[in-house]
Amino acid sequence: MLTRTASQTLTEQLAGRFAERIRARLLAPGARLPSVRECARQHEVSPHTVVAAYDVLLAQGLVEARRQRGFFVRDTLALPVPPAAAGQAPDAGPLPAGSGMHATALIRGMFHQSSRPQPGSGVLPADWIDLPALPAAVRKVAASKAWAKASLQYGEPMGDAGLRALLAHRLAAQHIPATAEQIMTTVGATHALDIVSRTLLKAGDPVLVEEPGWSVEFARLEALGMRVLPVPRRADGPDLDVMARYCQTHAPRLFVSVSVLHNPTGYSLAPGAAHRLLQLAQAFDFHIVEDDTYGHIAPEHATRLTALDGLQRTIYVGGFAKILAPNWRVGYLAAPAPLVERLLDTKLLATLTTPTLLEQALAICMEQGQLRRHAERVRIRLDAARNRSVELARAAGCVFAAEPAGLFGWVDTGVDTDLLAQRMFDDGYLLAPGALFLAGRQASTLMRINFATTQDAAFWSAFSRVRATL
Amino acid sequence: MLTRTASQTLTEQLAGRFAERIRARLLAPGARLPSVRECARQHEVSPHTVVAAYDVLLAQGLVEARRQRGFFVRDTLALPVPPAAAGQAPDAGPLPAGSGMHATALIRGMFHQSSRPQPGSGVLPADWIDLPALPAAVRKVAASKAWAKASLQYGEPMGDAGLRALLAHRLAAQHIPATAEQIMTTVGATHALDIVSRTLLKAGDPVLVEEPGWSVEFARLEALGMRVLPVPRRADGPDLDVMARYCQTHAPRLFVSVSVLHNPTGYSLAPGAAHRLLQLAQAFDFHIVEDDTYGHIAPEHATRLTALDGLQRTIYVGGFAKILAPNWRVGYLAAPAPLVERLLDTKLLATLTTPTLLEQALAICMEQGQLRRHAERVRIRLDAARNRSVELARAAGCVFAAEPAGLFGWVDTGVDTDLLAQRMFDDGYLLAPGALFLAGRQASTLMRINFATTQDAAFWSAFSRVRATL
Repeated sequence: MLTRTASQTLTEQLAGRFAERIRARLLAPGARLPSVRECARQHEVSPHTVVAAYDVLLAQGLVEARRQRGFFVRDTLALPVPPAAAGQAPDAGPLPAGSGMHATALIRGMFHQSSRPQPGSGVLPADWIDLPALPAAVRKVAASKAWAKASLQYGEPMGDAGLRALLAHRLAAQHIPATAEQIMTTVGATHALDIVSRTLLKAGDPVLVEEPGWSVEFARLEALGMRVLPVPRRADGPDLDVMARYCQTHAPRLFVSVSVLHNPTGYSLAPGAAHRLLQLAQAFDFHIVEDDTYGHIAPEHATRLTALDGLQRTIYVGGFAKILAPNWRVGYLAAPAPLVERLLDTKLLATLTTPTLLEQALAICMEQGQLRRHAERVRIRLDAARNRSVELARAAGCVFAAEPAGLFGWVDTGVDTDLLAQRMFDDGYLLAPGALFLAGRQASTLMRINFATTQDAAFWSAFSRVRATL
Repeated sequence: MLTRTASQTLTEQLAGRFAERIRARLLAPGARLPSVRECARQHEVSPHTVVAAYDVLLAQGLVEARRQRGFFVRDTLALPVPPAAAGQAPDAGPLPAGSGMHATALIRGMFHQSSRPQPGSGVLPADWIDLPALPAAVRKVAASKAWAKASLQYGEPMGDAGLRALLAHRLAAQHIPATAEQIMTTVGATHALDIVSRTLLKAGDPVLVEEPGWSVEFARLEALGMRVLPVPRRADGPDLDVMARYCQTHAPRLFVSVSVLHNPTGYSLAPGAAHRLLQLAQAFDFHIVEDDTYGHIAPEHATRLTALDGLQRTIYVGGFAKILAPNWRVGYLAAPAPLVERLLDTKLLATLTTPTLLEQALAICMEQGQLRRHAERVRIRLDAARNRSVELARAAGCVFAAEPAGLFGWVDTGVDTDLLAQRMFDDGYLLAPGALFLAGRQASTLMRINFATTQDAAFWSAFSRVRATL
């Protein structure tokens, strides 16, 4: 609630609160601000205060007034609008142009600085992933003459050879047959996904994605001009009937999938569904990129498409941001041999090489088994956290739309989670409302919670209090 | 010349030589191998040996036979073909689809490992740019608790704040008015150019480039589906008449320019030409991205578009690969304030953040003045090298097509430099033939030389010898 203070008027406080929401993308470009009457009621201030606050936002260029219709968040932050999809049936699946806007709310939320754990966060808390061996490994590499010398050239186009050999070994343990020559390092898994889509698709091409899904991926594909075809994700895998229909009508060339510990549901692909999916990919001749971002916290022997397929028409993408230092930005991909040169061209055209220092330091931690033991500890800790979080969520009246597993819970709150997120942001909580995981960005009663950051009863009581007002 | 050895037959040697050329992209996909008779004459072997060697290449999948036409390099390494440019006049400027292939020869050449300096190289030799303070700065950052803690989060979306403040200071000294909030770090200057073009353009959009120019930039734009409009680069700047005609017929939205020490000519923009170019940009409402890759070795007070324009419709791109450790991959851009959020969205969607460690280490070297003093030393050394190299090139019968300046010379050899590069590759020299800097990739008698790596009389005598055979 707003209260009069010596330093700020109510108008300034209210304007500041909306400005923060807009900058954090919790109010998306084009979104309508509440009516003056409604806003005055919500915040328990006079209509005059609201009008004055909206005028401040207008002067700051954050909102625009539309005659007879009210105030709207300005469109200056919009992503590029995908080109019109030529020759596309009007009732077909692809998203309307410009629908990728809200996704940046989630991505900006990843960098939201806060003193408390964030329920909507996509990563583990910093103290969970702290592995002191990691900075020690950096210092070791940085002290070596070989590294200082290698820094004076661009470096190996494919990435550090030592790390790639270890990654090949790791993949082999998961029954994914990749030689070091099929593995390429990248600036995090995001960059690997970017390279794959830029290599295999061109603007206007249709691409299959999972829904609900990681909307930053949708936004990226849309910004590249690709037509996103959302396939419902079920507990055992994507809905193959829907996918087959898309294949018949759109002939997509790529399917982007988080098979194991899918974001946001926590689902993992069942072996039979994986087999049928690969048969479909064969029949309709499309590639699959398997984003194994959550692989380090996944159960042993989870089914992976790249293992079944033997990297024939599948590409594996991995990273370390969920288990080690997110700021290091070390990711990788493993691809069918005939695709490697084309993928490498895209990497070189987009960023040239990647820094060797952090790749070599990571190799030291992998080689000495520190990463594996660290991941085991994190899994055990996450299991305990998940149990507590599930209990608290259920006690607060939430229903799990998917069986809890991995890092994320996909819960039904019974209320519009877009509104819920806006209100709880004022209390300092960043939520991940369901709309951010839906291709159409439609309002939803679902939200994604991070099991590691929702073990705190204080959050759930704030949640219950705010929900009761909606 | 091939000679019989105990370990390899003549057939094996000949096949190996062609395989190496193909893998280094000196023989581009689609290129025709010499006829059997011609090849036999060149290499002083029997036609039977040539036929056997071509069969080896066929079996390796490197070439394909076309009935009655001979052997051609296989197309497996092709970049994505840009979509057909809709609504484009048949006689208009944009490149034919798929013409971006040869550019990868140059980019692969950047990573070519060799014991001797390479005349076609785009960077200074490793020992020139070695600054011991740099690894020391990395060790200092890596020993800090603050860095270890910061690594556990994604980090600042815009990049390390300390480095950005120093970059703002550096730009101010060049009369480019950018606050730290307008500066964003990237994975090298290449990534910055990628972010700018992805933000301001969509597939199918026309984009102005300089010709001759950095063909890797052409290839990147083409791979993104953009229509490249080459504008002749003159000594004082781009040909504004050609540019004006493009503006009238194609309405391009962006011009990509290396204003200062242009690659490959070494030209620097004249003040008057800069002023008229900005007026044209104003009249036809396009943006300009100024790639200042060679800024560290440029004369003081060189004219920059971003300084004249005050970052209104211009974007500055800088990096450190030409003066410090190329493998660090630290670059940056400075943009008009209204564009910053959109550019940041593109950065985050493509790679999320960038690693803080190397950015902070670079900040230490900048802050202590080490970078500035280092750059001065390099400039003095390069001046001396250029004098020697120019003398040797002229003695070898080369004519400078542009007044020698900066890192590169643009010289006329009088012979087809595609052929010259192929032949000299067999002697272990990597050249940068003129075709690699032309939008149409047509054969040329020009080539780019690196002044730092062509001071060796042995190279020029090899050059003269091979040229005499063409």
